[in-house]
Amino acid sequence: MFPQHSLGGAVPGAAPATHTRSENGREYLLEEEQRGEDEVVQKAADLQDAIAEGANSFLFTEYKYMAVFMAVFSVVIFVLLSSEDGFAMKFHTDESGVSRAPAIYNGGFSTISFLLGASTSMLSGWLGMRIATYANARTALEARKGIAAAFSVAFRSGAVMGFLLAGNGLLVLYLTILVYRRIFGEDWAGLYEAIAGYGLGGSSIALFGRVGGGIYTKAADVGADLVGKIEKDIPEDDPRNPAVIADNVGDNVGDIAGMGSDLFGSFAESTCAALVISSVSTLGSEHIYTAMSYPLLISATGIVCCLFTTFLATDIKPARLVSEIESSLKLQLIVSTVIATPAVFAISYCALPATFSGIFTEDPSRLVRNWHVFFCVATGLWGGLIIGLFTEYFTSNRYQPVQDVAEACKTGAATNIIFGLALGYKSAIIPCIVIAVAIYISFSLAHMYGIACAALGMLTTLATGLAIDAYGPISDNAGGIAEMAAMGDDIRERTDALDAAGNTTAAIGKGFAIGSAALVSLALFGAYVTQAGITVKDSSILDPEVFAGLLVGAMLPYWFSAMTMKSVGKAALAMVEEVRRQFNTIQGLMEGTARPDYRQCVEISTQASLSEMIPPGALVMLSPVVVGVLFGTRTLAGLLAGALVSGVQMAVSMSNTGGAWDNAKKYVEAGASEHARSMGGKGSDVHKAAVVGDTVGDPLKDTSGPSLNILIKLMAVESLVFAPFFKAHTENGLIFQYFN
Amino acid sequence: MFPQHSLGGAVPGAAPATHTRSENGREYLLEEEQRGEDEVVQKAADLQDAIAEGANSFLFTEYKYMAVFMAVFSVVIFVLLSSEDGFAMKFHTDESGVSRAPAIYNGGFSTISFLLGASTSMLSGWLGMRIATYANARTALEARKGIAAAFSVAFRSGAVMGFLLAGNGLLVLYLTILVYRRIFGEDWAGLYEAIAGYGLGGSSIALFGRVGGGIYTKAADVGADLVGKIEKDIPEDDPRNPAVIADNVGDNVGDIAGMGSDLFGSFAESTCAALVISSVSTLGSEHIYTAMSYPLLISATGIVCCLFTTFLATDIKPARLVSEIESSLKLQLIVSTVIATPAVFAISYCALPATFSGIFTEDPSRLVRNWHVFFCVATGLWGGLIIGLFTEYFTSNRYQPVQDVAEACKTGAATNIIFGLALGYKSAIIPCIVIAVAIYISFSLAHMYGIACAALGMLTTLATGLAIDAYGPISDNAGGIAEMAAMGDDIRERTDALDAAGNTTAAIGKGFAIGSAALVSLALFGAYVTQAGITVKDSSILDPEVFAGLLVGAMLPYWFSAMTMKSVGKAALAMVEEVRRQFNTIQGLMEGTARPDYRQCVEISTQASLSEMIPPGALVMLSPVVVGVLFGTRTLAGLLAGALVSGVQMAVSMSNTGGAWDNAKKYVEAGASEHARSMGGKGSDVHKAAVVGDTVGDPLKDTSGPSLNILIKLMAVESLVFAPFFKAHTENGLIFQYFN
Repeated sequence: MFPQHSLGGAVPGAAPATHTRSENGREYLLEEEQRGEDEVVQKAADLQDAIAEGANSFLFTEYKYMAVFMAVFSVVIFVLLSSEDGFAMKFHTDESGVSRAPAIYNGGFSTISFLLGASTSMLSGWLGMRIATYANARTALEARKGIAAAFSVAFRSGAVMGFLLAGNGLLVLYLTILVYRRIFGEDWAGLYEAIAGYGLGGSSIALFGRVGGGIYTKAADVGADLVGKIEKDIPEDDPRNPAVIADNVGDNVGDIAGMGSDLFGSFAESTCAALVISSVSTLGSEHIYTAMSYPLLISATGIVCCLFTTFLATDIKPARLVSEIESSLKLQLIVSTVIATPAVFAISYCALPATFSGIFTEDPSRLVRNWHVFFCVATGLWGGLIIGLFTEYFTSNRYQPVQDVAEACKTGAATNIIFGLALGYKSAIIPCIVIAVAIYISFSLAHMYGIACAALGMLTTLATGLAIDAYGPISDNAGGIAEMAAMGDDIRERTDALDAAGNTTAAIGKGFAIGSAALVSLALFGAYVTQAGITVKDSSILDPEVFAGLLVGAMLPYWFSAMTMKSVGKAALAMVEEVRRQFNTIQGLMEGTARPDYRQCVEISTQASLSEMIPPGALVMLSPVVVGVLFGTRTLAGLLAGALVSGVQMAVSMSNTGGAWDNAKKYVEAGASEHARSMGGKGSDVHKAAVVGDTVGDPLKDTSGPSLNILIKLMAVESLVFAPFFKAHTENGLIFQYFN
Repeated sequence: MFPQHSLGGAVPGAAPATHTRSENGREYLLEEEQRGEDEVVQKAADLQDAIAEGANSFLFTEYKYMAVFMAVFSVVIFVLLSSEDGFAMKFHTDESGVSRAPAIYNGGFSTISFLLGASTSMLSGWLGMRIATYANARTALEARKGIAAAFSVAFRSGAVMGFLLAGNGLLVLYLTILVYRRIFGEDWAGLYEAIAGYGLGGSSIALFGRVGGGIYTKAADVGADLVGKIEKDIPEDDPRNPAVIADNVGDNVGDIAGMGSDLFGSFAESTCAALVISSVSTLGSEHIYTAMSYPLLISATGIVCCLFTTFLATDIKPARLVSEIESSLKLQLIVSTVIATPAVFAISYCALPATFSGIFTEDPSRLVRNWHVFFCVATGLWGGLIIGLFTEYFTSNRYQPVQDVAEACKTGAATNIIFGLALGYKSAIIPCIVIAVAIYISFSLAHMYGIACAALGMLTTLATGLAIDAYGPISDNAGGIAEMAAMGDDIRERTDALDAAGNTTAAIGKGFAIGSAALVSLALFGAYVTQAGITVKDSSILDPEVFAGLLVGAMLPYWFSAMTMKSVGKAALAMVEEVRRQFNTIQGLMEGTARPDYRQCVEISTQASLSEMIPPGALVMLSPVVVGVLFGTRTLAGLLAGALVSGVQMAVSMSNTGGAWDNAKKYVEAGASEHARSMGGKGSDVHKAAVVGDTVGDPLKDTSGPSLNILIKLMAVESLVFAPFFKAHTENGLIFQYFN
């Protein structure tokens, strides 16, 4: 499965590693130095091949598993949805005289949408990974020219990926709608209900991608660090470490491919939620196509705005100093938000009618104005920015919180952990309030459609978000290649500086992902409630079924996290054993005269992630179906709301805790200030304590945390897709029916 | 504040500590040995005095702060509640012809109940602490006779405390009701509404007790461990460690006094919730006094059942071997549950009328039968046992989960933390499902009254719960005294064995506290909703105000935990600095020829805990008032539900994670099995990794976790007490009113 020759290609650098290092510590704009250039380039190219092949081979194996899942789940979707009216085949005319497609159309085309969404998600992940693996080595090589050149490559690669994914998702969805219009005729409610399968497909692949990739990358990372850094005292990404290739492969399959699928899923779901909700309003019933396409137009506008913004980082005001990187990336976010605001305003005025109705389910005649909808989108857009900036504050080592965590390392690993956990908990406060305010405002203005639009607003800057998010793992991997290709300490310092900013932007990206996931799943939840025919009175928190659902729903993120954390832990233990075994049994490994068996470590990560992703995946996929069937639609409503409110907090705090620990470690290592230098740098006891925090943070920030936002979205979209089935067959739940 | 002579008295043991140790490793029933008996007894007595005086002095200082709070809050309660009808003074007759007391009665007598509840809570804490400090030294001395004798003393002391607190709380409440009946006449709804202040008083003191005591004990514990165990490699509780007295004082003020107040609060609140709810049913309107007193009768029955059960541990089948301790304590819980079931059944048949109505607010004519209520109580009773047994499974080192955590220590502190966190998350699954089932069943049978009765059911075995919970810190402290009085390693081993079982029972006690807190706060929430006049339609999760409240409410436990964790961290850092300073500056300290300045460490803990308890306390006390006033009663309803569902998960997982880490460490230390011995025991790298987990777990299990259940109860009871004010003045919230 894993070609030996390519791994072999990565190895020649191992032996002479320590001999070619230069101690040049200048920070920026160094011209290329003479150190056997061709040899270094060749090594980097070999490493890139090895990593790309590893990633490729893992993704294809993973996709095979996913294909099985897709096949099975397609049958489930088709059968459950088509059974609603007993597999009738004919269109019928409803009370308002509109011709409605039979349930089998919904079943069939939901299945097709599901497959399309899933395929697009896989394609997004794979494309992202391809771009990233090309970019890694190039960034490492450019780093020899200085920070500015390296930053430019890493950022451009991230941007290419961002635009490709955002554009790709939009295009497929647009084409699908065009085709479905011909089939569903005037039954727009049916059309957009069938489109919701697209979101389900995107999200279910995202779940497996995030969980599988997350376990892969963190098993390798934790395993490599525990033996390499803590026991053997060799640097990160040292080629003598047997798990080093697996670690680098992991960055590409977890942080890049998983994240690409995740954000694609958010985009697909929020668009689908907005479409489903508005299809039952006058926009749908009066067939105002442009207005119905408003969600797509918003996303398209966002892509254009982000495109203009990137020139700022690449041409107008590129980062030249280490200290400029983070603010340059932050500026991207701010400027794209600022530019997008008037653009969204213009689109809202042009695409939407001045007033429309049918949005408020309890008061269908209540009018919604186009500027109401603009405000909803703007709330999400600016809410996202606020969340992003606060996330930066809590995870960047330029600010107090992370420095406090670093300071706590002075008294050992335990206080580091305590302070890090507290930081994560605290960082949930502002995002949560922002989301609550966004929900209140957008719901008051345009009910659940407003919330879907707020989610879209938060994702308007998706392309920028993806760009700065992908930038992180690209820099991280560039550092790995620089280390393995023995490019020298100064190059490594530059890639580390890029990576430190990358940790922060990755946390910002996760903040966006979580914030938008909360809004998306609330919107999907609203759409589910409508489809399942649940009234306001039926969904009271005073209803025992709803409350029990709420409580159990709030527990699901804990159950899910327990599984994913333990999976990472178990896989990491297996990796540690293997790495230790190799150090103990392969003579000359530590001295650099023998080469480790990278292949075995890659195998362990692959096997662990593929087998371990199934239980948490099953938990998420089965919970809504089991609860919906056994306990009915109201308990399921409670379950979704509970998972949402509890999952948001956990996801935010896990991501930020992990980011903060990683950057606290980098703070100690880099020694950029008087305070940081007082800690003793790499190899000191303070640094060891910081590494413990970083290691604990790995599964939190890259496996459990980001998977949680998929959990809340996926359960909601799945409930939405199956709502017609639940309503028809198990409205009060089989178990409760039995007792009553 | 802290008498020098008594601290001085503790010191003479310091120098000859290492000389008198015996290596006798026999496990049980050792007869007293000759090793300078009088001297040892004298030392233990001196230590006891020092610890008791420290604890006394801290509690009195803490109570002074609380007195200020009580005075201020009394005024707030009185003014807000009396203002409801503009300070009218006369009784008036309502539509059903019943004479109703004016709001100023509610204000005045709620204030008095509040003060009574607060005073009883303080008394409970203080009495618990007095008993514990006596018991500590006696247990240590008895440990010289063997495990059986030591266990007997520790358990009896815990039982005395349990019965005293449970009886005391019941007595004061009973007398208060008797007096209030004379004043309120036939206005029973008014009477029991005023009684609700008792729960508020009990809980608010419990909050400060838990938080203040929790910060105290953990700052001292973490500080002592970080320098003593990790840096200096001296044993726990070594008299050379300057923080050792503070650590032992902390166990008594945090784990004992705080826990006593906490469980007293649960008892008071669940009783008040049941009383308030039933006062508006036919039980109240028809003045059936015995039936109204049903909640008190259940608690009284519980005390008697628990009393009989204790004979099992003290006389019929006392534990004689280390391996019997845990099962003996577990047996207490099982047997008291079994005995209580028929007793509750009998009481339900005797005290309650065969049918009564007015319980279901939406359907007042729906009948509730006495056996319905019995089932509610039984659901809570057995639900508590199930939670207890699963908690034991997850926190005792006799089972797989903790052994897995210990195994993870082999690869270092990071994997230990990852596995421990995963264990805690996982341990939330069953309690959560049990609570959800209990809620569903008891709500279906008897609406919110059923839930209050389920909470009472879970607290029926309160006296046993308190006994086995108090047993833990008593054993822990006995170990401290044995170490400081240089009683020898064998004695220490015995107290450690007692303590390991104590960690598990403490976790079980916390499981009960959290489970009952969830039910209590839901019942209080139900009572609040009734008082605030919120209908089912107003409390839909589809209402943006409710949902925003839900989301922000779910965030509050995170905010609160961030504060308390960071407080412990900060105080511990200060303690570490001080301990290090003393080791560095006091010549001969390490050699045992000079004595440390215990006083300074006690000061640091005291100051830190008193100043740090205010912000989290303010967060909890102010949130319901601020939200109720600014955002109205519905947002507050969402807030309470959100805090409840999120807080339960966090509290359970924090308590169990902490307990598991502590016992994983004890597992490595004790080496009781082949597997455990393979880890290398005290001082090995595995042990060091285990100590890091234990240290992180300290604030989780003894500060943040147990405080969270007070958070959810207290916010609910406070909302209930202020409900008439919110309803009268700020039903839609000042801010929302402004915008509309």
